[in-house]
Amino acid sequence: MKINNVCILGAGTLGSRVALQSALSGYKVRIYDIDPTALERSRKTMEKIILHLAKSSGLEESAGLNAIDLITFTDNATNAVMDADIINESVLEDIEVKNQVWELFGKIAPEKTIFTTNTSYLLPSMFADISGRPEKFCALHFHDVFYSKVVDIMPHPGTDANLIPILDSFGKSLEQVPVLVKKENPGYLFNSMLMAFIGAAGKLLTKEIGSIEDIDKSWMVNFHMPKGPFGILDNIGLDTAWHVTKSQPDLASQRFAALLKSYIDEGKLGEKTGEGFYKYPKPRYRDEDFLE
Amino acid sequence: MKINNVCILGAGTLGSRVALQSALSGYKVRIYDIDPTALERSRKTMEKIILHLAKSSGLEESAGLNAIDLITFTDNATNAVMDADIINESVLEDIEVKNQVWELFGKIAPEKTIFTTNTSYLLPSMFADISGRPEKFCALHFHDVFYSKVVDIMPHPGTDANLIPILDSFGKSLEQVPVLVKKENPGYLFNSMLMAFIGAAGKLLTKEIGSIEDIDKSWMVNFHMPKGPFGILDNIGLDTAWHVTKSQPDLASQRFAALLKSYIDEGKLGEKTGEGFYKYPKPRYRDEDFLE
Repeated sequence: MKINNVCILGAGTLGSRVALQSALSGYKVRIYDIDPTALERSRKTMEKIILHLAKSSGLEESAGLNAIDLITFTDNATNAVMDADIINESVLEDIEVKNQVWELFGKIAPEKTIFTTNTSYLLPSMFADISGRPEKFCALHFHDVFYSKVVDIMPHPGTDANLIPILDSFGKSLEQVPVLVKKENPGYLFNSMLMAFIGAAGKLLTKEIGSIEDIDKSWMVNFHMPKGPFGILDNIGLDTAWHVTKSQPDLASQRFAALLKSYIDEGKLGEKTGEGFYKYPKPRYRDEDFLE
Repeated sequence: MKINNVCILGAGTLGSRVALQSALSGYKVRIYDIDPTALERSRKTMEKIILHLAKSSGLEESAGLNAIDLITFTDNATNAVMDADIINESVLEDIEVKNQVWELFGKIAPEKTIFTTNTSYLLPSMFADISGRPEKFCALHFHDVFYSKVVDIMPHPGTDANLIPILDSFGKSLEQVPVLVKKENPGYLFNSMLMAFIGAAGKLLTKEIGSIEDIDKSWMVNFHMPKGPFGILDNIGLDTAWHVTKSQPDLASQRFAALLKSYIDEGKLGEKTGEGFYKYPKPRYRDEDFLE
């Protein structure tokens, strides 16, 4: 089966990025959101990304902006899914909202449409049945599309195995590295490892074994990376990390979740609020003398 | 207190590297090993490192080789420790061996000598008393000195606090980034995080959620790193990783330890034996098309 028409559900950060890359890769793209102001923001987000890519990569600015012009932004569900070969859904990370969306699109999508969800921590099996076509339902999880170019393909037990190579090709056509998550797993592959190492960093901090800066330095210098675990947490958002951490039953996770909560209660959610473990826009870990 | 004379105990890989960097930083260095052939190998290792540094960094080859010529290689313990301001011990990772070494050097070292151990997984408190000067005893743990330039300073409860700033300055003078491990912790800072993320990768593999290559790809692409967890394991050595993993009581670690053991039993210890999770010298993850 050949994919030509891509339908993106949810015009937030990730939906906008997947839509933009799909357009850049030559697909005909429709992006849907229930909220018209979200669609306006989405277009602006895309323009910013193009300007950034024009500077940082070889992308021609005019070609990028033309790609955006070819995207259909719509708050009309029927219009959005018309002719769609594939849906990639990035609506709110909430079971009820996703259920409503998949129930609706299961009814109005053409029979040919493949259904994929970009859920971060929920599982495709939670929505496969309500969509009415569980065999055509699979998680297709992007990271940030332009910097972290991995896409997880995670079937649920009822997914038709023939879908996998189609999604693999589609992922590659979007300039991503596709990886197969053979069984449903809440953190796919990367997030499972990420949260394990972030959890270990949290344990070092709550047990007062190391300071925030020393723990980050250890990671940065050993792996030659621009950020350590607490810099990474500031980027992820302490609220997001708290949601994941508090769901772990062990004592170390509970302690770290309590620490994250104390930051959140002070309005320190990370980069997006200007402060988390570090202060932005000039966090200490970016200072030239940090690693001296 | 000013450090001028450095005594390195154990002329293996790490001891040779610490000795060489100490010489390059202008210290007067004596390196001791009970085995004369180890001392010969050590000198050759140092020469190789100098040739490598001359190519990769700005180091002048002749200056580097001169620094080696100024190092005293000796199998005479009394000679080795004569005038030493600091000892850094990197002998075999075995409690009995370390006990013997510290008991001996506790008796023959000058009163001024600071005692530091480079132990990987043991704790300084295990040897502090037998050395006869627990207050002058501390872990000073290097990673690989020339690529991963972190040094962990880890006191035990009886370490004199005044030692910390001395070791911090010494670490900086060796072009390392010193980090303080405030309480004794078997994995210092970095290794605790490393083993947590490696353990998560092992769990993904043993639970058949992802393949070796897909798990590695996820890590490499998301973090823009040249290796993923299984490439890193091949570098660490599967035998070393097995020792650490099998000491964890949880089921996931036990399963992963069993998997590591099956590789070890086939002689696949990683890079050093030519095969581990990948085959060397041309592992799949270094192929240009690996991330396509």
